Amino acid sequence: MKLLRVGAKGEERPGMLDAGGLIRDLSGVVGDIAGHTLSDDGLDRLRGLDPVLLPEIPAGTRIGPCVGRVGKFICIGLNYSDHAAETGSKVPREPIVFMKATSAICGPNDPVYIPRGAEKTDWEVELAFVIGKRAKYVAEEEALSHVAGYCVANDVSERHFQVERSGQWTKGKSADHFGPVGPWLVTRDEVADPQNLGLWLDVNGERRQTGSTATMVFGVAFLVSYLSRFMTLEPGDIVATGTPPGVGMGMKPPQFLRAGDVIELGVEGLGRQRQVCMDDPG
Amino acid sequence: MKLLRVGAKGEERPGMLDAGGLIRDLSGVVGDIAGHTLSDDGLDRLRGLDPVLLPEIPAGTRIGPCVGRVGKFICIGLNYSDHAAETGSKVPREPIVFMKATSAICGPNDPVYIPRGAEKTDWEVELAFVIGKRAKYVAEEEALSHVAGYCVANDVSERHFQVERSGQWTKGKSADHFGPVGPWLVTRDEVADPQNLGLWLDVNGERRQTGSTATMVFGVAFLVSYLSRFMTLEPGDIVATGTPPGVGMGMKPPQFLRAGDVIELGVEGLGRQRQVCMDDPG
Repeated sequence: MKLLRVGAKGEERPGMLDAGGLIRDLSGVVGDIAGHTLSDDGLDRLRGLDPVLLPEIPAGTRIGPCVGRVGKFICIGLNYSDHAAETGSKVPREPIVFMKATSAICGPNDPVYIPRGAEKTDWEVELAFVIGKRAKYVAEEEALSHVAGYCVANDVSERHFQVERSGQWTKGKSADHFGPVGPWLVTRDEVADPQNLGLWLDVNGERRQTGSTATMVFGVAFLVSYLSRFMTLEPGDIVATGTPPGVGMGMKPPQFLRAGDVIELGVEGLGRQRQVCMDDPG
Repeated sequence: MKLLRVGAKGEERPGMLDAGGLIRDLSGVVGDIAGHTLSDDGLDRLRGLDPVLLPEIPAGTRIGPCVGRVGKFICIGLNYSDHAAETGSKVPREPIVFMKATSAICGPNDPVYIPRGAEKTDWEVELAFVIGKRAKYVAEEEALSHVAGYCVANDVSERHFQVERSGQWTKGKSADHFGPVGPWLVTRDEVADPQNLGLWLDVNGERRQTGSTATMVFGVAFLVSYLSRFMTLEPGDIVATGTPPGVGMGMKPPQFLRAGDVIELGVEGLGRQRQVCMDDPG
């Protein structure tokens, strides 16, 4: 299934994509794509529906982030060996874990805001996974059963805030609209192998990032297990798994985003995003 | 006012302390100490109540974290010059900002869990503030009007996870029950000067931390303004403002927490917490 949330910001309704690509309204069935709806039972219930019998949502309706009530927005740093190299960093011995503010989450096609004082706003296409079942001290073999599904994320990053303004990356990762998530949550039964998905990102029509989750240093199952030793993962938590090479910071000379720039990105089988950059309206 | 939340974990009801120190039930008045209830209007409405007319909650009822629906649990690192010195770090030029997982939040007297694999679990008494009004690009002069109130927090930290397991502190800050918050939220009108509050922490009856918010490097008003340039602060967000000297990591030789240890801590005018350490039950 491809599950999504549509409508005005903060008032999104749950929906699902039907076989013909139309968005069907789930708001008569579940309150949100969140919490218990993300469990195996919750998803099985939605699988039992005939989408054609659900109300159609008009094309052109805004698509919001594909998950609601996100408790944690966890990111993995330097998780592609070739991306680590381009930033001048070593491949980490263990996953680097940091958080984006949940207030950064936005829809896949909402504008990316360039925050005031920004100097080096950068792009990062990523495979994200969404937790469906509470995970604490989970073995790697069991880990994928805790994943509800997968989606595209753009881990927008202000490098000046992230690395030149006193320690810890959170400061450069958390501005409003720095976390486009979606368009849809693709349930895990439809992703045969999360470690074999192509990723790409264009800026103004020029290809900047190309990669495959096959070259991730730490794969999804390992990450679920690993994270669950340090914190409890809860339904609706989002984990963005790191970005392949091709970020602006790694270009020679480096290139960063400005108002008017257009970012397009996607992950194989998970859909695509498109963002126009604009100065943060405040 | 002193606002709190009481009852079983995840089912806390809102309450307030009356003049005699009894807990009065607010669940007939507001749904939670969260969201809009933390706004000036929301708090004024509670101020208009006569606590004596509210149902009394039996003494001994568990006290939960004093705020519900926390979107972000933000922490400031090395924010007391003498604490920075004891950890061998320089005073930062700008605030160090990191996140604790919101799933780490617990009540002020709940046990502190020592996670599996922990080697260096440490204590940190802190003044925390809670946002009452959305803050984005806020000037320092206006900043305190965005604060609903203040509370005690223990920023429990696993130093091995935090600094010896590959970059970024989040990993050592986010285990379940690493975030005791409360016992109550003291509204800002009752805190004459947040930069003149004593703090203390005992382990097994021995004084470990003594300090005053007067020696904070970056004060509350500055922090609200500063953070609001990097992310939007929303009602219910908690910011823990850093710890004074006396953490276990800074002792010679270093000392850390073990199952059975008792932590007691407090901030002047904001109440006290008491935690018994135990191995994480999983």
